This record gives sequence, structure tokens and C-alpha cells, in this order.
Amino acid sequence: MNESSSPTKILMTLGQEIVKALHERRFPMLEIPDRRTSNIVFDEDSNSYVLGPSRNIRDSSNVKHVKRFAQLTWVASFAKNLLQASRTSSLRDLYYSSEAFGVGFTDQSESDRIVTDLECVTGLPRESFGIYPEEHSSIYGEAVMRYTVSGYEGKEIDLTISPDGLPVGPALMTAEPLESNAEVVLAVESGGMFSRLIETKAWKRFKAVLIQLGGQPPRSIRRLMRNLHVTLDLPVYIFTDGDPWGMHIAKVITSGSANSAHIKDLTIPHAKWIGVTPDDIIQYSLPTEPMSNADLKRLDELSRDVRYSESEWQTHIQQFKKIRIKAEQQAFSRFGMDYVVDAYLSTKLD
Amino acid sequence: MNESSSPTKILMTLGQEIVKALHERRFPMLEIPDRRTSNIVFDEDSNSYVLGPSRNIRDSSNVKHVKRFAQLTWVASFAKNLLQASRTSSLRDLYYSSEAFGVGFTDQSESDRIVTDLECVTGLPRESFGIYPEEHSSIYGEAVMRYTVSGYEGKEIDLTISPDGLPVGPALMTAEPLESNAEVVLAVESGGMFSRLIETKAWKRFKAVLIQLGGQPPRSIRRLMRNLHVTLDLPVYIFTDGDPWGMHIAKVITSGSANSAHIKDLTIPHAKWIGVTPDDIIQYSLPTEPMSNADLKRLDELSRDVRYSESEWQTHIQQFKKIRIKAEQQAFSRFGMDYVVDAYLSTKLD
Repeated sequence: MNESSSPTKILMTLGQEIVKALHERRFPMLEIPDRRTSNIVFDEDSNSYVLGPSRNIRDSSNVKHVKRFAQLTWVASFAKNLLQASRTSSLRDLYYSSEAFGVGFTDQSESDRIVTDLECVTGLPRESFGIYPEEHSSIYGEAVMRYTVSGYEGKEIDLTISPDGLPVGPALMTAEPLESNAEVVLAVESGGMFSRLIETKAWKRFKAVLIQLGGQPPRSIRRLMRNLHVTLDLPVYIFTDGDPWGMHIAKVITSGSANSAHIKDLTIPHAKWIGVTPDDIIQYSLPTEPMSNADLKRLDELSRDVRYSESEWQTHIQQFKKIRIKAEQQAFSRFGMDYVVDAYLSTKLD
Repeated sequence: MNESSSPTKILMTLGQEIVKALHERRFPMLEIPDRRTSNIVFDEDSNSYVLGPSRNIRDSSNVKHVKRFAQLTWVASFAKNLLQASRTSSLRDLYYSSEAFGVGFTDQSESDRIVTDLECVTGLPRESFGIYPEEHSSIYGEAVMRYTVSGYEGKEIDLTISPDGLPVGPALMTAEPLESNAEVVLAVESGGMFSRLIETKAWKRFKAVLIQLGGQPPRSIRRLMRNLHVTLDLPVYIFTDGDPWGMHIAKVITSGSANSAHIKDLTIPHAKWIGVTPDDIIQYSLPTEPMSNADLKRLDELSRDVRYSESEWQTHIQQFKKIRIKAEQQAFSRFGMDYVVDAYLSTKLD
């Protein structure tokens, strides 16, 4: 990253513009991309959702804007302090840190929203400022990463060092992939499946770096997966529960989510959802549950979603609507503990 | 562990007794300790909850009992297969594995209950059979553990290897503490605080092995904490949110929970709750929230709980009832990112 595009530099430029306006006795104002759904468009090139051209002006001379304007400058200054001290903060800590400054966040959802504003203004994800949520995913497999965080700079870690996997926190998320004996990244939805694949040495058999998504995954793991995909040229496969929610986990990884449409370099268009597809549910005679009303409603929403416009995805949706049943990825245990590896995954990954 | 008390041996003896009864044309029956609250008593010696003398008979000649009897024998056989294959299973996988055998669990809560029955019958925790829940806590600090799980036997791991911490899954939970430069174990409720204490090198300053509990902690981490406490002689301090739920996290660590009253060697009677106490909330002028009705109801329940009979705990409860406000452990961030370490913890741990 060159000097002028470094997060610190970008924050300083933002601050200098505000100070300059004040010196010239103008009310400073900021242009913020409009994040409403109406301004989210599908970008064919990157196969992901991005923000359209619509902009909002946040004008400090407007009483309705001035509070959010001030909150944004406080968050920017908090971020700059983090960077200068080589420190990180959770979103929760940021919220509490604000209390001493009277910037008046009524709750954490408000400060989270201002953090997103700062992302939009600067074009940088909060992670570049050292601001993270608390959720963690896990990783395991034959790859070596090199840390860049303070105190661990240059240290290498083998991702098979801990048989329970490694959590993907700020340190691993910002580490550089160095080398790998693996040939694929295999992301799975549940912790149980992740442990199963470690224990049965499925990672060895499939030459896979295993990722535990833990439901709809935090950005950190999406970024790390993309990093492995791009840097080490590993294809990404996603194995989730067989229901609309599992399918959408895969879709967000491939094409992005509305909530992170303003963040670049987060999607993996060529990642592939391997199941559990509605076809698999029938073909493998899996134990199932009937779909709830919420499941069916979700299917309707997804069928109208532009991200699902390809015929392959529409077919999945129509099949789910027809069978009206769902199955967890762990349902394969019905046929024995190793069946999911020996039969299902070995067919899917071939 | 000697041969006759090994989990496999205990399961085999159980099976042999059932088979013997059948050969002698008797209906086999099992004695299971009564787990109702009325049979949970406080054991002064171990300062923890244990099951009292009341027993239930599960009689296979009784139509009302025969299904649960059969389910228990299936779970016992599943456990024996796990042990023989040196494998583990999540509670969820166990539930799905049962589907092929027609043992008729209506949902996972039913199979979980039968697993607890097996614990009571054998006197062994499910972990001895390789059966685990999915939740994980994390650990970080200057200690070295030696793995005992298959594929990693004898391998040592330094608990500072990953700056994001290490998850405490089946492998680390069953590892042996070898040596440590640490002088205390410091358990904290939230992931944000855990990351903060790693990053600020508080573990070095306080010579602490850090534990992230993640709310009311799974048994695995309670067992690992006890293991560090007993094997390496490290005192245990617990730092939670300042509310009835945080206080009770500490109480379960020191004195046990009703749900695990049948499991031995899980409590740490000398572990100490360092806060956030109601006193701290006032003294440090922390940002607070008013208590909800659920919080106040919980305080009432705790005030009548025999585990809280010591005057120190009753004082905390009465103070909470008086101030009717609560504070998160991350509320210290109000005074700056390092305040919790520089001011609060250094006072508390001195």
C-alpha cells in the first residue's frame, strides 16, 4: 500500500479538508454514498453488489445533520488513534469509548452505523482501521501464514498446529498466505462438521484448507478465504445446511451482501455451493424437517433476488419450493460417522 | 487411569450386566441417580452441588421405561464405538446417528438427556466417551500443553502461538498442562475483553493465562481451568459483566451448576470473582443500564440459592437490588482503551 492510499493518510486528508473549511469560515460537508437498497446495483463485472451513483450530503450547517457529522469525525479520530498505536478495537469497545466524549450514541447500533459511514466516506473497510466485530470463525489445513500484527510481525504459523482449529481474529485475518500443500478451500457451515472433517483427516484426503463459517460468516473469514483463493489460487467450495439460509450463506460469499455492498474485494464469484442441495436431500434420503413459514417466505424473497437470477440457482429455489423440506449438513451421520466424507464429499469434490 | 475404571471397561461391564440378565431370562434394569432439583444437595466438603441418595429404577419390563432403556443402551454402544475408534462426536451428530437405528429420539434435547443418563449410570462425563457440544471457548498465555488426541499424541503446543487465542475443543481440553510462566488464570466473559488483554500484553504484565468464557462457559473450559489450577497450582480469577448473569458465571465455576451436579472434578471452590461488582459500578462511575425485570427476578432467585449463602455474596446481591443498574466489563473503555488494564485490573489483581 503506498503512502497516499494508506488508511492513516486517508483519515488525515479527511480531517484536513474539514479543518480547511473551518479556516475559510465555511461549514464543512461530506459526501456519503447512499446506502439505501434503491442505490444498490448489481455489477456484472465483479458479479457482486455495489453501491450506485446516488450520494447524500452531510452538511454541518444543517441542524439535522450536525450530530451525525460530529459523530463521524469522532469515529475517524478514534480510528486514527488506533492506527497510530497499532491497536485494534471491537465495535462494542468503540461504542463505550465514545461515552467520555459526549458524542451521544444512543446505542451500539448507532455507532456501528457511523462506522459504516466512515467506510463509505473513505472507501476502506473498518478492518483497515483495526475495528472488528467479536465473532470468530475457524480454520484448519496445510497452509502456512505470516502474521503482520504488532508483536508477531514476520512470525509464521502452520494452520495444522492446533487440532481444534485456529480462530480467525484480527491477527490471522491480516496475515499473509505463504504456501500451501492444499488444492482447495472447503468452507462448512457448522462447528460439528468442521471438527468431523479434521478428525477424519478429510483435509488430507481432499487436500483442503477447512473453514468453519459458523452460520452467515463475519467479513474477516470472507476476506481470508478470498485471500487464500487469490494468493494461492485455491478454488473455494461451500458446504452448508440444505435450506434457504444455508444456500444464502454461499450466495453472500460468491456475490456479496447488501450490508457490505460498499466494501471492495470481499466476494469470490467463482466459489461453488456444493450442497446440501434439494436434489441431495432426495437422492441421499436424508432425515429432514418440514420447512417453516419463515423458510418458505425466505425462498420467495430469494427467487426475486437478482443475485439468484442464473438458472442453476432458480432451479434450486424451485426444487426447495416443491419438496418443502430441509436437511442439516450433519444429517448424513444417519448413515454412519464417515459417510459424509466417504460418500458425499468425495463425490462432490471429484 | 487403570484398566478397570477405563470408560471402555465401564461401558462393557454395563453391557455385560444387561446381557447376563437376558441370559438368565430376567428383564434387565438400571439404577439411575435422580436428577430432579429435590435430589440436588450442597456438599460442604467440595463446596459444590452434588446428587443426593435418591435413585430411579429404569425397568425394561415396564412399558413406560422400555423406550428410554433401549435408547440408553444405544447411546452406550455408540459411545463404545467412538472410544474404540478413538473418535469424537458432537451431541448433534449423535442425534443424527441414531436415526438409522430406530431408537426414536423425537429431537436432540431427548438424545442429550439420554447422554446425561449415561453419565449418571457410569459416573463419567460424556467427554470421557468423546461426546462434546459445539461451543468453544478460547485460551491464550504462557503455558505449554501436551496433546493426547489421536494424530497429535505427545505434541506440545505453546498457548501464545496464535495471537487470536486458541479454541478449547476436544484436543486442548484433554491435553496435559506441562509448564507455565504464568502465576494466575484470568477468565473473562467477553471476546472483546479477551482480545484487549492479549493486545495490551496484560497477560505478560499480570503473568496470566487468559481464558475467554463466552458467557456461561461450556464444561470443556471449566475442566481445563480446573486442570491448570490443580496441575500447575494457578489461582483462578473471574472477570465478568456487572449483572446477575455475570455474577452467576463466576458462581457456577466455583460451586457448580444444577445441570452438571452429577459430574465430578469440575468446580474450582477457590476461584475468585473480581467483578464487575456493584461496588465497582459506583466507585468507577461506569456507564450503566437500568436492570430489566428479568435481571431483578434473577437476583431474587440467586438470593434464595444456597450457593450464595456466604455473606460476601449476599452483600453483592443486596447492593445490586439497591442500585438496580448494571454495567458491562467493556464499559471501562469509557476512560480510554487501557484503563481496564492500568487502573481496574491492576488494582484487583494486586
